[in-house]
Amino acid sequence: MTENRRILIDSLPEGALETANYNLVTESIPLAGSGEFLCRTLAISIDAGSRAGLQGSASYAGAPRTGVVMNGTALARIEDSKLAGFQPGDLVTCPAGWQDYSVQTQQTASLIPSDGDPARYLGVLGGTGLTAYFGLFNIGQPNPGETVVISAAAGAVGHLVGQMARTRDCHAIGVAGSDEKCHRLVTELGFDAAVNYREGNFRQALKEACPNGIDIYFDNTGGEILASALFRMNQNGRIVCCGVVSQYDTSNPASGPKGIPGLLINKRLTMQGFLVFDYLNQYEAARSTIKGWLANGELKPWQDAYEGLESAPRALVDLLAGGNVGKRIVRVAE
Amino acid sequence: MTENRRILIDSLPEGALETANYNLVTESIPLAGSGEFLCRTLAISIDAGSRAGLQGSASYAGAPRTGVVMNGTALARIEDSKLAGFQPGDLVTCPAGWQDYSVQTQQTASLIPSDGDPARYLGVLGGTGLTAYFGLFNIGQPNPGETVVISAAAGAVGHLVGQMARTRDCHAIGVAGSDEKCHRLVTELGFDAAVNYREGNFRQALKEACPNGIDIYFDNTGGEILASALFRMNQNGRIVCCGVVSQYDTSNPASGPKGIPGLLINKRLTMQGFLVFDYLNQYEAARSTIKGWLANGELKPWQDAYEGLESAPRALVDLLAGGNVGKRIVRVAE
Repeated sequence: MTENRRILIDSLPEGALETANYNLVTESIPLAGSGEFLCRTLAISIDAGSRAGLQGSASYAGAPRTGVVMNGTALARIEDSKLAGFQPGDLVTCPAGWQDYSVQTQQTASLIPSDGDPARYLGVLGGTGLTAYFGLFNIGQPNPGETVVISAAAGAVGHLVGQMARTRDCHAIGVAGSDEKCHRLVTELGFDAAVNYREGNFRQALKEACPNGIDIYFDNTGGEILASALFRMNQNGRIVCCGVVSQYDTSNPASGPKGIPGLLINKRLTMQGFLVFDYLNQYEAARSTIKGWLANGELKPWQDAYEGLESAPRALVDLLAGGNVGKRIVRVAE
Repeated sequence: MTENRRILIDSLPEGALETANYNLVTESIPLAGSGEFLCRTLAISIDAGSRAGLQGSASYAGAPRTGVVMNGTALARIEDSKLAGFQPGDLVTCPAGWQDYSVQTQQTASLIPSDGDPARYLGVLGGTGLTAYFGLFNIGQPNPGETVVISAAAGAVGHLVGQMARTRDCHAIGVAGSDEKCHRLVTELGFDAAVNYREGNFRQALKEACPNGIDIYFDNTGGEILASALFRMNQNGRIVCCGVVSQYDTSNPASGPKGIPGLLINKRLTMQGFLVFDYLNQYEAARSTIKGWLANGELKPWQDAYEGLESAPRALVDLLAGGNVGKRIVRVAE
């Protein structure tokens, strides 16, 4: 390779995101300066949350811009280094975005150990798995026997949350967008039940799946599923606000649910938002616990891979339409 | 008196509550049975929250019914007793509702000490003051220097919350519905600023009143004021969900604010609902603290009284329209 393919944000979406909102350009490979190193992108994490960064109002990632490389966390291999401790051949995760090469520093990249499939550091051992972990345990605070409902339950975070809840002897109830996803959550991952929100009378089906009400609702979607869960929450329930995928793929987010704030009062509910970065100093302890579950089979991560950098726009557009099962990545190079 | 005047819920309001939704009937005075005592109502607490109990869907108070006496906490004097420890002449608070006489038991009534104006036990030393106290301190968890914004700030709870926040060296910013209320909050009660939500550009005025953003929003209203406060919240801010007065006086509550749940995530906010009854075992400690503030002048309760049982419907209808300043009661007898 002598060139760096880069996928830029060409235009901001006005309605749903389209692959036409991106364009691929080819530039020369950048050079690492003093204290920097050159990284070859091996795989890219495709995250629904990155769609929020393209909305008109600024998210936590700042206001959206065009003409820049699309953001995304990558698994990368160091090709050239001007920084001691970061050697060619070392693997890192870094915010490379959708491109073949990027220059990183000690501040932006994290070395990862060679203890198995390195792509796990984009998923179950990366931001996705840590988000599931801190959201469920630090925000949700589950107790044995409680009922945990998870939206986008077949998604990157959701399918892990349900399995983690089972480790605490909670009832894990998934909400997903197809019968096949629901079936797989129960039969392959041990969810106690799963409800297809696109079928029939969802509110009634959710009620039947949660005969004892909901103690923790792990919300990856917002919107109608949040509204439905609110009505089934038990007194002193906790709503973990993790994502709003129902509202990302639009320029005009809908109003919040009717029960806000009235139901929060009547049922003494807590709704709490969080970002995984807030728990940086607890990452290692959490990863250690997660590795234990991976080793003993209590946690089975699903990976859902696209091939080739050029497939990244399709991978994200499809994910926003609910096409993924588990953690979606794009494999860029070996 | 040989008769018991009772104000019944005659019909459930379809839009805003009207005095015509009530009717006054006269019955004979009830008799206290064994283990009971007869109470003469002296004053009735008029609370916005009681409007919620008349809405179509059940609130924490249960589904609404007609043909029953309107509910309300009362200050009452024992007239006749068949229960040791509750003597004629003793004062109690009890859920007498809107009537001259009621029969109470040890489970329903609380004796109050003769340590000043007994009507304080309907306000600053009763559910109102305790709601302000537990909402601010247990849910809001204020730190010195933080900015606390309070909606319905001239209301029964709100005007106390701002003063309590000042005892922790917080900045207290009130939101109220008239320039006069705002002026009085600042000049009489020591609020740092107050904003009239009915005037001009409220969002801009709120922004100017909170140059350092909002750390705690004590929400008595929901609706547009909640939506505006959400956009000014600081990272890790707390929203205390205490009341929804903007939504009580309707049969069709509005949708929630647009920023739910997206802003909760981006700003790592917590919204928590509560009811004062949840803190029953902390009432005495809180009352002791409140009495200290009353004694040293740090807390100045406002009382707003109507005269005569028959004025109760007007007192509530007017309160729902924002007519009260401080704690509204109806004086029924001496």
